[in-house]
Amino acid sequence: MNSRLNPTASMDLKTWITARLETVEVALDQWVSFDASSDLRHRAPADLMAAMRYSVLDGGKRLRPLLVLAAYETVRAVLKDKPLNLDERGEPAACGAIDALEAGQIADDTALRAACAVELIHAYSLVHDDMPCMDNDVLRRGKPTVHVKFGEASALLAGDALQALAFELLTPDGTLIEPCQQARLCRLLARAAGCTGMAGGQAIDLASVGLRLTQSQLQEMHRLKTGALLQASVMMGTACVKTTPQINAGLQTYGAAVGLAFQVVDDILDVVADSSTLGKTAGKDADHDKPTYVSLMGLDGARAYAQSLHDQALQALADTGLANTRILQGLADMVVQRSN
Amino acid sequence: MNSRLNPTASMDLKTWITARLETVEVALDQWVSFDASSDLRHRAPADLMAAMRYSVLDGGKRLRPLLVLAAYETVRAVLKDKPLNLDERGEPAACGAIDALEAGQIADDTALRAACAVELIHAYSLVHDDMPCMDNDVLRRGKPTVHVKFGEASALLAGDALQALAFELLTPDGTLIEPCQQARLCRLLARAAGCTGMAGGQAIDLASVGLRLTQSQLQEMHRLKTGALLQASVMMGTACVKTTPQINAGLQTYGAAVGLAFQVVDDILDVVADSSTLGKTAGKDADHDKPTYVSLMGLDGARAYAQSLHDQALQALADTGLANTRILQGLADMVVQRSN
Repeated sequence: MNSRLNPTASMDLKTWITARLETVEVALDQWVSFDASSDLRHRAPADLMAAMRYSVLDGGKRLRPLLVLAAYETVRAVLKDKPLNLDERGEPAACGAIDALEAGQIADDTALRAACAVELIHAYSLVHDDMPCMDNDVLRRGKPTVHVKFGEASALLAGDALQALAFELLTPDGTLIEPCQQARLCRLLARAAGCTGMAGGQAIDLASVGLRLTQSQLQEMHRLKTGALLQASVMMGTACVKTTPQINAGLQTYGAAVGLAFQVVDDILDVVADSSTLGKTAGKDADHDKPTYVSLMGLDGARAYAQSLHDQALQALADTGLANTRILQGLADMVVQRSN
Repeated sequence: MNSRLNPTASMDLKTWITARLETVEVALDQWVSFDASSDLRHRAPADLMAAMRYSVLDGGKRLRPLLVLAAYETVRAVLKDKPLNLDERGEPAACGAIDALEAGQIADDTALRAACAVELIHAYSLVHDDMPCMDNDVLRRGKPTVHVKFGEASALLAGDALQALAFELLTPDGTLIEPCQQARLCRLLARAAGCTGMAGGQAIDLASVGLRLTQSQLQEMHRLKTGALLQASVMMGTACVKTTPQINAGLQTYGAAVGLAFQVVDDILDVVADSSTLGKTAGKDADHDKPTYVSLMGLDGARAYAQSLHDQALQALADTGLANTRILQGLADMVVQRSN
């Protein structure tokens, strides 16, 4: 097994997160780079790569990669215990089995690539979101946004290139990832990123400024805008090993609940936190007259709703029948309790 | 066999192009749509989809889809004649054979999806290229550009969503495309689109304004900016059926030569054609002080170079050993002789 993603059995959440964040940072630094030993055929133009690296290697929370790795490791742990007793229905017949024991290295690398690919999509969306024609934001994670630092044209191109790079990471040459896994991961990521996922949610957001949305309309917007990619993170981690329909369904529900909770808490923090804690401009939703969970439900209502989504997420984990889901539980706690 | 891509044996080039253009337009209209019967899980927000459709369904030349289909049909025709006598070295072992006769329908659908996916990447690049922070162009194919018609934010999002949709098209559920083909097509497309392909070339272009480039620097820029996606079109068509290393190598060289010839002719047309013929603003390279083949080699030099690239492309086709390459020959002629 790849030591980078091992072992988890005796780690507490904080130790696990610290170890995985380090793994993810090292991997992103390697894959978004000029490094001739990386998979990239040619060195990308220096200016473009500088803007891409600035966008990605900036100490984000890495919630999406953590969700990918947590889901992967949670399911893998079960497969290690009883690799032969699984119900494998629901898997496409053409998709060859990844045997967790024999092919642990491949599965670990696959999960790490999936984790980084999701983060690249997230990073590109932030770069484009911050541009003058969108949110026109000058501060992100306490630093000048990409277009402020590199110019608008470079920000536009860096975002575009990051999206493509996400799919490059998922489709390496040779046998680094089984072809059927490559296809499944690309499918999950493309749907979560596109017009019926993140980009679609942003378009609804754009069209909703100044409108009074119902809770279900707001929900639909956030399910696409933020929820789709967070849920896809969980599903991509799960897709790195063979699993059961029951586990799949439970983790899908978990991903949806955590994804929505994340946005509700985002709306709360936009009201109650200051810019230096957030690392971005606080209060901008109200300034832009954007509908939020707080404007719809009030602060207490939004807090209660976040808590109920958290409870839904934990229930979904229980429904998977998995024995040890504490890392995923811990990430759900973190999403609801976070202060930035 | 799927009648949409059949038969080619007795068609002349013009008839072939007309038939394939119709097939591609119908497919794009279906796949970039609200149509509930399409693969998309959810209906994309109306405003976003309108901008995406406006970008794509606008009567472009569809050179990239034509190259995909021409390469596919050229190679498929050989496989139909002697499906058992092929040297299959050079194919990943994990990649199950697509049998041209038995799986003709799958291969046809795969090629059509590949053709449309490449066009979506091309369409998104035009939308973003035209934006004020890039070329700031208001006219494209004789119509207002997307940001003029829908606003900058919608243009940005439509481009982003089109890139994701390209990868969605290549990764349908079920058995519409073999998983290993999905992975290969995603790999080819992601590399051609990203920082070491199209986006990388655009970044060099951006950084080169006002500079005097050598021919090899100009070549490198265009190899990435335009050439990578045109070459990928040929390779994606070829990847839809099993082939030989000799055929692969020949078509790769053909794709590179046609890709570069396209750009040389683009530079020539920017000088000699008027805006109404081009359907876009003529003379803008000189206005923006951009290095071009014409500024580097003069008009006659550029014309001679385009012709020599055309000859290279035809030689590469001869080197494949394929008996009938007249559609690909015809497309090479068309690229060099075009007037817009």
